[in-house]
Amino acid sequence: MKLLYSPSSPYVRKALVLAIETGLDRSIEKVPVTTTPVAPAPEVASRNPVSKIPALIDGALTLYDSPVVCEYLDSKHRKKKLFPAKGKARWAALRQQALGDGLLDAALLARYENFLRPTDKRWSEWSDGQMAKIDGALNALEKEAGTLKGALTIGQITIACALGYLDFRFAELGWRDKRKKLAAWYGKFAQRPSMKATMPPG
Amino acid sequence: MKLLYSPSSPYVRKALVLAIETGLDRSIEKVPVTTTPVAPAPEVASRNPVSKIPALIDGALTLYDSPVVCEYLDSKHRKKKLFPAKGKARWAALRQQALGDGLLDAALLARYENFLRPTDKRWSEWSDGQMAKIDGALNALEKEAGTLKGALTIGQITIACALGYLDFRFAELGWRDKRKKLAAWYGKFAQRPSMKATMPPG
Repeated sequence: MKLLYSPSSPYVRKALVLAIETGLDRSIEKVPVTTTPVAPAPEVASRNPVSKIPALIDGALTLYDSPVVCEYLDSKHRKKKLFPAKGKARWAALRQQALGDGLLDAALLARYENFLRPTDKRWSEWSDGQMAKIDGALNALEKEAGTLKGALTIGQITIACALGYLDFRFAELGWRDKRKKLAAWYGKFAQRPSMKATMPPG
Repeated sequence: MKLLYSPSSPYVRKALVLAIETGLDRSIEKVPVTTTPVAPAPEVASRNPVSKIPALIDGALTLYDSPVVCEYLDSKHRKKKLFPAKGKARWAALRQQALGDGLLDAALLARYENFLRPTDKRWSEWSDGQMAKIDGALNALEKEAGTLKGALTIGQITIACALGYLDFRFAELGWRDKRKKLAAWYGKFAQRPSMKATMPPG
């Protein structure tokens, strides 16, 4: 399998962490790409028409976006599944994944606003709106930090990759302030070899 | 169940179409909300920390985003499932859902850029980048229009809601030009009672 990949993409990181946790990483060839919404890489656009990564190529099959790539990878190993098959555990994991992805979507939009867009075209209400989503997600995660313990799922992986992205791109945010339980959980989770091996570039 | 809802949201429409197709619509109370990235509705933010719809409330459980809401609803009826359980059919449906959602994500960002953002803060390269994603998705869908026939899945529903959104907000785009197969498929799909009952406001 080939994975269109960037070391700074938190959505790609989800797939890589899952692959390492399940032993699939040895079956994945990482193909580095550099792509942004205003300068899409042709090698991404030719595989994923909306030009986003991760995209996973397995023979004739090309899959995207990150939830689909992750669930597909989870079907390809025989260890414990990180997508619970059904029932309460599945909905809890998928909702947590959506919360982490939603935090990331807001963070990426805020990042594009304040680093990609020309200075005179920035709109503070847009950034403020995205930052409010990040804040809301962090507050919700602090409240439910107790539910993050327990068997590893795609929910925890996504939330950890989202928090890692905040450390990478929004260090000044100080997300750990007033979120002691979430910070403690992440501090431990970030020690997993899968997380250490996929740290964004320093 | 309660669904936080807007008649103009294409992501909400996915859930409504699925509910009608499976007979679940009678079990869903639609709660109308008005929310944007710069003016999030408090009643949405209190349920979905990243303030997006659809959000589905079923007793103590609140679910988001649209793929999770749709898969949950699909677990709640006994008709033919619209999320294939496994194998090639599942990956085909999930990839098509991601393609339709990706088209919509680009369309919503282009819409926010050109209708929500103050005129002097608009950046044409951003709009152009989003429109290129829409164009790429449409071209890919035209190529694979043949695969849209066959048993109803969440893939088809998502693509139809995405095309319906282009008619609603991007009529000037003329997406049917040079996409005759896709246009023919959509022309037929749009006649389903579930699609007619969920048309965005005129």
